[in-house]
Amino acid sequence: MKKVEHIGIAVSNLDIANELYTKILGTNPYKTEFVDLEGVKTSFFQSGETKIELLEGIGENNAISKFIKKRGEGIHHIAFEVEDILYEIKRLKDRGFKIINETPKKGADNKLICFIHPKSTNHVLIELCQEIK
Amino acid sequence: MKKVEHIGIAVSNLDIANELYTKILGTNPYKTEFVDLEGVKTSFFQSGETKIELLEGIGENNAISKFIKKRGEGIHHIAFEVEDILYEIKRLKDRGFKIINETPKKGADNKLICFIHPKSTNHVLIELCQEIK
Repeated sequence: MKKVEHIGIAVSNLDIANELYTKILGTNPYKTEFVDLEGVKTSFFQSGETKIELLEGIGENNAISKFIKKRGEGIHHIAFEVEDILYEIKRLKDRGFKIINETPKKGADNKLICFIHPKSTNHVLIELCQEIK
Repeated sequence: MKKVEHIGIAVSNLDIANELYTKILGTNPYKTEFVDLEGVKTSFFQSGETKIELLEGIGENNAISKFIKKRGEGIHHIAFEVEDILYEIKRLKDRGFKIINETPKKGADNKLICFIHPKSTNHVLIELCQEIK
């Protein structure tokens, strides 16, 4: 695990949240992106070497809309950057963690990603992500 | 806002969570600390320039135990490092954010801290922290 790559925050309205976080962080989002596969639109703010990712679900059938319906807006996940996602998946699986998707998928911001089930991590949804080169 | 200084995670049992996050992060906590004023014990893991802070409440009358009782374990707050906490409090207050404690207090890890009310930040509890020199 190299560093905290980003912190994902589930929001109901990305435009409103962008304004809010621009005020808090004193900087504009450096990009906005639709992730079709996940059914979300996202924006990214840089904060030191870490990013703040805001996520709004499109429609109802996606992880963010379901999360908000159940728990309300708020912090959704922490993502750690890794060198070799397949190695880390095996390492964590061998140590008893439940991996949600053992085959990494394409996420936002040019990354291969997978999630560790929050039931095995004090209810924290942890993402592993590896830059696609 | 200089960077994400740490991410705070509320846990029911610090010893068990320490073992878990040692496995995930592949590194031991570099310190454990009692914060009497807050009624919590904490441990810190380094991840790049950011820290993961695990927090267990002592007894019932503290923010962490109340959070867990209401929402269960999970991510509790994001802390941003600032150069001048009084300047940032004024800046954010002027922009309409509700500051929980306008007079900074002594937090863990040798910091002056204050919190922005989650009602004004998409239900994300944001801490500002300034290193005490």
